[in-house]
Parts: sequence; C-alpha cells; structure tokens
Amino acid sequence: MDIDALLTSAAINTGLSVLLFSLYSILRKQPSNTIVYFGRRLASLNNRNSRNHFSFERFVPSPSWIVKAWETTENEILAIGGLDAVVFQRILVFSIRVFSIASVTCLFLVLPVNYYGQEMKHKHIHAESLNVFTIANVKEGSRWLWAHCLTLYIISCSACVLLYFEYKSITKMRLAHITTSPPNPSHFTILVRSIPYLVGESYSNSVKKFFTNYYASSYLSHQIVYRCGLVQKLMVDAEKICMKIKAAPKGQSSLKPCCLCGGSTSFKVLTDEPESVKDSFSYSNLNLATSDNERSAAFVIFKTRYAAVVATQMLQSPNPMSWVTELAPEPHDVLWSNLCIPFRQLWLRKIATLLASIVFMVLFLAPVTFVQGLTQLEKLSQTFPFLRGFLKQDLINHVLTGYLPSVILMLFLYTVPPTMMLFSSVEGPVSHSRRKRSACLKILYFTIWNVFFVNHVSGGFLFAFNMLSSVGDIPVELAKAIPNQASFFVTYVLTSGWASLSCEVMQPFSLLCNFLKKHLLRNHEDSSDGLVSFPYHTEVPRVLLFGLIGFTYSVMAPLILPFLLIYFLLAYLVYRNQIVNVYITKYEGGGQLWPIVHNTTIFSLVLTQMISLGVFGIKKSPVASGFTIPLIICTLLFNEYCRQRFSPIFKKDVAQVLLEMDRRDEQSGRMEEIHQQLHSAYCQLPLTSHEFCESVHKLCQDNIRGREGTKSGKEPSEVSEPCAVCNFGKEGSIGE
Amino acid sequence: MDIDALLTSAAINTGLSVLLFSLYSILRKQPSNTIVYFGRRLASLNNRNSRNHFSFERFVPSPSWIVKAWETTENEILAIGGLDAVVFQRILVFSIRVFSIASVTCLFLVLPVNYYGQEMKHKHIHAESLNVFTIANVKEGSRWLWAHCLTLYIISCSACVLLYFEYKSITKMRLAHITTSPPNPSHFTILVRSIPYLVGESYSNSVKKFFTNYYASSYLSHQIVYRCGLVQKLMVDAEKICMKIKAAPKGQSSLKPCCLCGGSTSFKVLTDEPESVKDSFSYSNLNLATSDNERSAAFVIFKTRYAAVVATQMLQSPNPMSWVTELAPEPHDVLWSNLCIPFRQLWLRKIATLLASIVFMVLFLAPVTFVQGLTQLEKLSQTFPFLRGFLKQDLINHVLTGYLPSVILMLFLYTVPPTMMLFSSVEGPVSHSRRKRSACLKILYFTIWNVFFVNHVSGGFLFAFNMLSSVGDIPVELAKAIPNQASFFVTYVLTSGWASLSCEVMQPFSLLCNFLKKHLLRNHEDSSDGLVSFPYHTEVPRVLLFGLIGFTYSVMAPLILPFLLIYFLLAYLVYRNQIVNVYITKYEGGGQLWPIVHNTTIFSLVLTQMISLGVFGIKKSPVASGFTIPLIICTLLFNEYCRQRFSPIFKKDVAQVLLEMDRRDEQSGRMEEIHQQLHSAYCQLPLTSHEFCESVHKLCQDNIRGREGTKSGKEPSEVSEPCAVCNFGKEGSIGE
Repeated sequence: MDIDALLTSAAINTGLSVLLFSLYSILRKQPSNTIVYFGRRLASLNNRNSRNHFSFERFVPSPSWIVKAWETTENEILAIGGLDAVVFQRILVFSIRVFSIASVTCLFLVLPVNYYGQEMKHKHIHAESLNVFTIANVKEGSRWLWAHCLTLYIISCSACVLLYFEYKSITKMRLAHITTSPPNPSHFTILVRSIPYLVGESYSNSVKKFFTNYYASSYLSHQIVYRCGLVQKLMVDAEKICMKIKAAPKGQSSLKPCCLCGGSTSFKVLTDEPESVKDSFSYSNLNLATSDNERSAAFVIFKTRYAAVVATQMLQSPNPMSWVTELAPEPHDVLWSNLCIPFRQLWLRKIATLLASIVFMVLFLAPVTFVQGLTQLEKLSQTFPFLRGFLKQDLINHVLTGYLPSVILMLFLYTVPPTMMLFSSVEGPVSHSRRKRSACLKILYFTIWNVFFVNHVSGGFLFAFNMLSSVGDIPVELAKAIPNQASFFVTYVLTSGWASLSCEVMQPFSLLCNFLKKHLLRNHEDSSDGLVSFPYHTEVPRVLLFGLIGFTYSVMAPLILPFLLIYFLLAYLVYRNQIVNVYITKYEGGGQLWPIVHNTTIFSLVLTQMISLGVFGIKKSPVASGFTIPLIICTLLFNEYCRQRFSPIFKKDVAQVLLEMDRRDEQSGRMEEIHQQLHSAYCQLPLTSHEFCESVHKLCQDNIRGREGTKSGKEPSEVSEPCAVCNFGKEGSIGE
Repeated sequence: MDIDALLTSAAINTGLSVLLFSLYSILRKQPSNTIVYFGRRLASLNNRNSRNHFSFERFVPSPSWIVKAWETTENEILAIGGLDAVVFQRILVFSIRVFSIASVTCLFLVLPVNYYGQEMKHKHIHAESLNVFTIANVKEGSRWLWAHCLTLYIISCSACVLLYFEYKSITKMRLAHITTSPPNPSHFTILVRSIPYLVGESYSNSVKKFFTNYYASSYLSHQIVYRCGLVQKLMVDAEKICMKIKAAPKGQSSLKPCCLCGGSTSFKVLTDEPESVKDSFSYSNLNLATSDNERSAAFVIFKTRYAAVVATQMLQSPNPMSWVTELAPEPHDVLWSNLCIPFRQLWLRKIATLLASIVFMVLFLAPVTFVQGLTQLEKLSQTFPFLRGFLKQDLINHVLTGYLPSVILMLFLYTVPPTMMLFSSVEGPVSHSRRKRSACLKILYFTIWNVFFVNHVSGGFLFAFNMLSSVGDIPVELAKAIPNQASFFVTYVLTSGWASLSCEVMQPFSLLCNFLKKHLLRNHEDSSDGLVSFPYHTEVPRVLLFGLIGFTYSVMAPLILPFLLIYFLLAYLVYRNQIVNVYITKYEGGGQLWPIVHNTTIFSLVLTQMISLGVFGIKKSPVASGFTIPLIICTLLFNEYCRQRFSPIFKKDVAQVLLEMDRRDEQSGRMEEIHQQLHSAYCQLPLTSHEFCESVHKLCQDNIRGREGTKSGKEPSEVSEPCAVCNFGKEGSIGE
C-alpha cells in the first residue's frame, strides 16, 4: 500500500463521515425521529409535544449538536449517565491526552528517523510506500534507534502518570458517589443463595430462623425468590398492556387500526369502575408466593448498610457452598431468571461458558484469515483468475486493498456481541450490569486476539493456533509482523473506527424500526419500550482495541497516530451526544469498568515494550534493547502498586464510609423512613412491582370495605397486618 | 542400568538403613542422648532424672520404638503435635493407600504387558536392563496399551476419591479443633498495620480513636508494636541468663569451668535478696514503650471472636494501604522483628524475593546437570580419561551409576531449605508458621522443578531453560524422557528417600552437638534451648516429591512402586516416632498445609495424565489417547469442586462457629476471665514477657511498699491503675 491508496481510503472515509454527520444533523431535527435521537430526554422529561411545524431550517445541516456535546460538563454527564458514563468519557479523554503526546513525539522525532533510515533514493512522496515510514526502513545496527527508545520511554511514562491520576480521581468519584447518593436499597440488602433444604420447613422459615439467630440485632426482613415460570411472564405482559391502556387518553382507544389486515379493535376501559370486576376475580389466584414455588435464594434486608456488608464478607456456614452471601444488585438491575439457578450449577456453568467462548474464538479465525487474504491482491487474482483484468484497474485496486477487507471483517464482528452476551447470560450472573461486564471482558479478549494478534501472524490462523503453544515466541513474531501490517491497521482505523462512529450517531437500526413502525404499522405514538442503555460491552472493547493498536504502532509506524487521534476526538463528541440524548440509565454500574480499562492499558503498554524489545533485537541495537528491559519492569511494578492502592475499593465496600452514612441517617432520623421503603424494594412480580402490589392491595381493601361496609375508619394504606386476600404485608410475600 | 545394578543399590541401602535403625535403637537407650531423642518428652514432663544405671540391655538393638510408633493413635498425635502433625500423618497414610492400589494394579497388569511388549529374546532376568520393564518396551500401535489406560483410570479415580475424603475429614477436624480448643488470644485479636501518621498524635492514640469511633461496642484494648532494637535483644538475652541462673540449684553456680581456657567463674545469685538491687536500679529505664519507639502496627483486642473476624474482613479505610487488618497469629507464633517493617515495603519485598527465588532456582541447575552427567558413565570417562581403567571395574561401575549421583544431588539440596527460609524471612511474614508455609511452597516448587523436571530433560539445564519458553512441549518432552530416566529415579528413591529417613531418625547433627557439649564443654545439663519444632517446610516437599515421582512413574515404569511403598511405610513409622518423642510444638498451624498437599497431588495427577497422553501419542494409540483426555478434564473439574467446597474453610473463619463459641463463653460466664487474660497476651518484651512484666511489677510494688510501709491493704496483684514506675497496667505499655 502506498500513500496514494492511504489517501484514497482517508478521502472516502472522511467524505462518508461528513455526509453521515450532516445527514444526522438533519434527521435529528425531524419530529418523527425524536424517539430515535432523543430517547433519553423524552423518557426523563415525559415531554411528548410534537413540534410538527414545518420550517426550512429543519433541512439544513448544522454543527450545533457538536457544540452542545462539547459544552456538556462532567457533572451533567454524571447526573445523566451515572458513574459508568463518566468512566467511559475518561477512557476517551485519557486516550486523547496520551496519543496527543505520542503524536507530537513520534511525528517530529521518529518519523524523520524512519524516513531517512536507509540511504535510498526517495520517490515522489505520494507514490512512496507506507513501509518507508515504518521502523522497517531503519537499517540494522543504526545509531538512531535511541530515538525510538526515547519515544517509548516518553509514551510509557506519560501513559503511566495519566493512568495513575485517572485511577485516583475515579476512585475518589466512586467513593463520593456512594456517599452522596440517596439511600440505595442495594446497600442494605444482601442476596443469599443456596439456602439448605430442610424437610418440613419452607425456605422462608429457614432464612428467618438463620438470620434471627445469628444477626438478631441487624436483621430487618427478607424476600424469598420464587420460581419464574409462565405465570410470571404472563403477569408481566398483562401489566405492560395495563400500563398502555392507562396511559391512553380516557374514553379513547389507544390501539390504531392495523394497516395490514385493516381490522380495528376497540376496548371499553374498565379501570374507572373497579366494582364491576371486583367479585368476578379473586386476587388470591395471583399469589405465586407459596412455599412450593420458593427457590433456595432470598434477599435479606438489614437495618444498616454496615451490617449488610459484614454479612456478605463472612463465611456463613461450615459448608462454604451453602448460605452463600453477596451484596444484592440494585432492584432494577436484578436478573430474576438467573436467581432461580441452583448455586451448585454456577461453577460448572462458568467453566462451560469459558470453554464455549474459547471454541468460538478459535472457530472465528477462519473468516478473519479469509479477510486477510483479501488484502493481498496477488493471492486474490491467483484464486479467481477471471478477476485479473478487473483487479488491475487502479481505483478498484485502491478500494479493494484499502477498504473492502476491513468492512468484511467489521460485518463478521457484528455477530460477536450477541454471542458473547448469550454466553454471559448462561454463566448465571444475578444482575444486568454484571452480565454486561462479563460480556465486555469476553468481547475484549475476543477482539484483542482475533483482530490484533491473528492479523499479525503471516501464516494465517493455523499458525496462530500453533503460536498458543509457544508463548515465548509471540513478541518476536509480532516484532517481525508489525511494520508490515501497518497499512492494514491504518485502514482498519479509518473504516472500522470512523465508520462505527457515524453508525453510532446515526443509529440506522433504530431509525429503520421507527420508520417501519410509523409508516407501515401507522403507530405514531412514541413509546419508551425500545430505549436501551449504553452498550458498554461493545464500545469499551472497541475503544480499548484502538488504544492497543495506537500503543503498539506508535513507535513502529507513527503514521497511524493522526488518524487515531481524529478517531478519539470524534468518539469523544459522539459518545457525549449519545449519552446526553439517546441512551437511558437503568442501573448504576459504579465505575467497575475502570479496572478493566487500566489492566488492558497496562497490557498494551507492556506488549508495546516487548515488541519494541523484539524489534530492537532484530535491528541489532543492544543499547536500545538494554534500556527497554527496565522500562518493562517499572511498568509492571507500577501496575502492581495500582492494584494494591486502588483496586480493593472496586471490590469491597469501605467500612468507614458505610458506618458514617449509617450514622448520618440515624442522626437525621431518616432511618425509619428508609426501612419503610426497603420492605418493598425487591419485589419479584412484575416490573414496577411495588406500585402493582399496592394497587392490587388497594383494590382488595376496597373489596373488603365494599363487603363489610365502612365499619372501621382505618385507612387502606395503613398496613399493619398482612392482607388475607392478596397477602400484602406478609413477610416474604409479593407485597413485601 | 540393569537389574543387577538396581539390586546392588537396593542392597546397599537396605543394609545401611537396617544398620542405622539398629544404631538408633541403641543410641536412644543411652541416658546421655535423652535430650536428642526425647526432647519433646523432656520438655513436657520436666522429668530430668537421669537413669544412669548400667545394663546390658542398653546395647542390644530392639524394634520396640517401631511398635510404640505404630501403636500411637491419631488423637495422641493431635494432642502432642497439633493439627499440622495429623495432617502430615494423613499425607503419608494417603500415599500408602494410593500407592498400594497402584502397586497391585501396575505390578500385575502393566508390568507383564511391558515385559512382553516386544517380540525379543529375553536375557536372564538379573542381566535384564530396567528399560525392558518400562513402557518403552511396548511396541508402537500395540493393542495392549488399554492396560496402561485402564491403570491410569484406576489410579486417578482412587486418588481423587481418597483425596476427597481426606479433605473432608481434615476440614471437619479443623472446625472441631477451633471449636474445642481453649480460648485462644489469636481469635480475639487482630493485627493492624500501616496506621496513618498524624502530626502531634501518637500511633497509640490514633488506634484508640479509630477503634473507639468505629468499633465502640466490641473494642477492648490494644497493644502498639515498638521498635525492635538492640535494647530488646539485650533484654531477651538478660532474661535467658536470668532463667538459667534461677533454674540452677540454690547456692550453686550453674556455670562449669571451661575445658578450653580452664577458667572458672562463680556468681553470687542475688535473686533471693531483691532489696539489695531495688534501689540501685530504676525499672523505668526499662520502659521502651515511649511514643518515639512506636511503630505503625498494633494488636487490637476485641471483646468477641466474631467482632475480631469482622474487623479483618472489612476494608477499613478509603485508602486500602492504610489501616490494613488481618487476624493476629498466636502469641508464641509472632515474628516481632517483621512487625516493624513498614507495610508499604511488603509488596516490593514479595516481588524481590520472588525474583530472587527464581534466580536461585536457575543458578542451581548447574550442579544438577553435573550430577546428571555422572550417571552417564561414558561422559565421565571422556571428561577424565585417566579414570577409564578405574571405571571399568564392575563394582565401581555399579556404585557410581547407582548410588553416587543421588548422594551428590542430595548434598546440594541441603543448602536449599536455609536459603528459602531466608527468602521467606525477607518477604516479611508476621508469624513463624506463615514463614514456614511460605518456605515450604518455595522449596516445593524448587524441588519439583530442579529434581523432577530438569532431570528429565536430556539436553541439560540450558535446554530446560529453553523449555520454559515453549510450555506446550513439556508433556511431549517428558513423555520421551520418562521411560529412560526410570533408573535414575529408582536409585533416587533408594538413596534420597530411604537414607533421609535414617538420617531423620538418627538426628546426626543434634547427636554431634550433644556429644561435643557433654564431652568437650563438660556441660551435663540438658537444656531445652536446642529443641526445635517439626520441619514441615523440608519434609512436606520431600514427601510430595516422592508422590509426584510415584504417580508419573506408576504407569510408565512400575518397578519403582515397591521401593516407594517401602519408603512411605518407613516414613509413617519414623515421623510418628519423631513427632511423639523429638519435636516440640511451639504454635498451631491449623492444618493449613493440606490445601498445598491437595493442589500438589492434583498437579501430579494431571501431569501424569498429560505425560501418558504424550506417550500414547508416541506409541500411536489413538484409543488410549482419546480416553485420557476426559480423564484430565474430570480431574480438573474435581479439583475445582474441592476448591469451592473445602478451601474457603482454610482461608476464612466461619461466622456461625465463632458466634456459637462466643455465645457459649458468654453463657458460661467465662468471658470476663478471658478478657482478663487477653490484656497481657501480646506482650512484645521479652520472650516470656507476661511473667517478666508481672515480676518486674511485683518487684516494683514491693519497692513502693517497702518505701511507704504497708499503708494500704491492697494486694499488689490487683492492678487497677497503671504503675507509675514500670508502667504495668498502662494502655499500650509493656505490661499490657
């Protein structure tokens, strides 16, 4: 690949990006697309007034969204997207900072050394091969390799310093976030699994006995997990429909005539006349909270945060596989279906999904190798001789070598996140956030292995498989391959990187769905059903992969850095815009992503240093090699220090902080109020269960009053005894 | 090596062993050696009456000690040597059981298959090479390899079943040991390190403030750690001398004239007239407990066991590197010198010792390679041509190939334990038991790598070093090497194994010291100074190494098994005898050795299976290879299950057990008494510090009473206020 091909690729991608960003700036002004591009705002404001007036302005592209995205402060991001969104922003800020430093150093120091590395007659610059700009052009035993070594030092040191301050500030933010957040039920609640089965005793009773015996002073109540079967699914669906009908303006059917079958349905909404349904339907049928349906898991609620954390830190029973405790996830974060999985299965499930992920990674190598074959034009024309004439045309040549391979690879990569998400679901995590984190890690390993390593191994995927058995050879193999694969990765940044951002901002899939819904199904109501939370599990690995590419190529082939820097700058703006406007925050991840980011960055740094060591070895520069070894050791020591200093905060809660929060709440007298809220926080059935339970109970109370007359003046909302019909208020039932 | 050479070696070793055991049975009856062979009994009974009467019986060897060792029950071992001694016995019992099964299966199934594996004319049996009995003799593609595969299944399954029941029973024993043991100060106490330094505040005050603030309900008191300098060393020495003088019969000097210089010293013992020293010496000079000497570590004592464990499980402060808590070791187990090491150094020390250990392992390979060269006679006569005639003699040949190499290797290996112990000390563990465990692990890795792996690699230690970089090739390399190295390891079992047991029972070093002391220094007093605790750190790796050799050779070269079985049977008797008679128990390790044993055994099993897989591959038997793979997977799954099921018990304390112990003590009203004892449990200065502190205080009180007259009727032992002179009773001082 020469500079011309690179410029063609860059031009195509810049053009495409500008086009798509302009298109986006127009589309976002169309009222019909509000739900696609302002989903979060709609959900938070409940502001559904259509601005359907026509104006010319709506069809003029404008960069206002960029300005708005730029002006959003970190505090706003924190308020809107939670700590995880801030952490994601910090990854981008860190990348921009470190690659700015790397760009300046590499372009002004390394690039000239590479270009004039060998005594040769240089062609005109735009016919020059990309290889001339890589370290491959420096002659063996050159004295100028100190420049590369120095650059490596500058990049490593600045990365470590920046990483340290980022880790420090994120740790601080995490602590501040815990301290200042409103009382969170997940702080008071633990999840107990693998409750031992005793003959003639319900799980609920076992839990009560155990915790009143050993945690008498701090135990508040508990909530058994029930079997999640068909009935629960039906109830959830029923509730959704119920919500929809309620949301419709009174007396008016909310269901439109179907444009396909032309049929029109109409309901008489009965919600205003409860008496008419009261006697025909017994709410006790709804009660799934029988001891037959109980599963060996429960949420146990404590009086203080500290007591809850203590209960999770201790080994409860002489059999470590029973009474297993962990902190409960947030109520909205709970994955109810996985709570029913017997605890004894979990370790087998984990091993099985690990093996499945590895098999998937290995099988995936085939298409990647095929894609790699495409980049070598000679191979292609050998395989398909009839294409030879076609391939000789210059433009086709440039497009094929510079653009197509990456697109195919990208399309294949789109199958990865759903597969890994499936694996993570099977693994049995109890919360959405943990499932996402686990999928994030899987996708990260997958991407680094399949996109980075395999593409660097000249012998294709069989060779890559062999490489696994001789781990020691990897750095040397990479050192040989990296300067030659520079062109592939430059185009990869241009296509996969830039195009993915355009794609992210355009949201083509949601746009299409919205279009089909509005014009084919004639449903003009914007519902918040389709709103999703930020896909950290796909975006974090992507950004980290570009970081890895950036680090490894910075010293070897610095021409990649400007393109990468543009990618990170665009990503910064695009993702800010998306966090503010599009994605909703269903639960709080607590910044748990940062340790993953930190470890990956350290891995990238050490890999870069080891590859450099290999390259310096190949170039026969003992001085440069000698100086690289202490750098590797220092980087590893730095990582170990950070692991000691910061990472425990992300794994355990701090006693001091929790005790002070408890004390504050007790002194302000809010504890009683919090305890009241806690009783109903973890309600399994259905989604907005607390309100549902309450409303069922209210109907129930109305029913009783209707039968008994208003003998007593007691208000139905005062729950002192469990309700006989719907069980509301009974310990361990739906209503509590 | 042929059967003749093997028999020569076996004969030499059997003869030597019988001789040494007989010598032992005579030596142990000599009254002058009582301290060497009955150290523990002497220390526990304080029975020093010499049975110096002469009898002929004293010089007749007898097997009575074997009968006594055999008859000792497990409960006696538990009472005498603690849980660790029982665990050590269990390792031997497990080995005997599993290798009995292996011996029967291998000798009756595998050995005939190996011997008749190829169509060849067998020589007379005693001229037959050992190789004929190994799997190397089975021809490629033989159908009889199912016998090896079946044996592998039988051995693996029986080992796993036995391991499971051992782990289960040891876990149970550990819990029972914790529950039934008398109140242990280490259960109530935690060690706090890295107390943050505040200007104008002593560490003692910081600790008090912190724990009264956050653990007000359960905090009892604390004991700051002071600088361990010259003064402490002097005081310890002074106390030792003091104890010696006290122990001597009254009015008689306990120091004998020196036989070298002939000088004779005599002291007037002043202990009976305290008044004469009282005024000339102010005890307040002894007080090291000033805030200048304070170190940032403290023992904090809680009111209940549960509260102490809770405090260790929590992350105390937002900075995970300050207020670091862990359960305190037993008072006698504390390594005071390491408590003064700043906590921030620890992770660096750990990394440094890790690197140092690796370097030591690598440098050690040179002598091992040299030893290996000795076993190949041709090499030796090439290197030293003048020896050629000498080496051609048959006996010399047999001795050299069968005996000498192992002896040299063994001598080199004697330098390993002190070195590893030194590394473990530098690492900074806070207790003797932890230091021993860490040294045990280091020696284990060292032994397995240097004795097992390196001896199997034909190309010597440089090749072994290369092997590190291609981990995947290790099983195949081993598969090639193992059948050929059988003769070396048979002799290794005979020499290193059998001889080490004779050595262990004879205690040549103590015997020599005792002899020198009694006959050269003319000191006929038996002192318990030289008594040591059981050297688990050298013996556990040794036994585990023989286990590893046994497993890997069982299927490949079953001729090794009878010798190994004899070793384990002898070891069982010898170590029982030593535990009962020789070694004292200074502290309790709590059975923490078993997880190491379990993991090593699983490692040995999996290695055996992988080597078999390699051998089956070389022998071209796809069926046998195919059946081996599920066996490896099942073994790993079994290990994972055990890790989940049992190992947490060895890492954390069980809440339920602790709460019930606390409750029992509270109900029986013993808690007050326990709290009284706790105050003085962790006293830094000097060794038997509590008594010392009390006696100083008593002297002090006498002094005061002597000056003031007996104004108040208050007993000196009732300490209500800190003593003004010696500080006894003051928080954080010597006396408390």
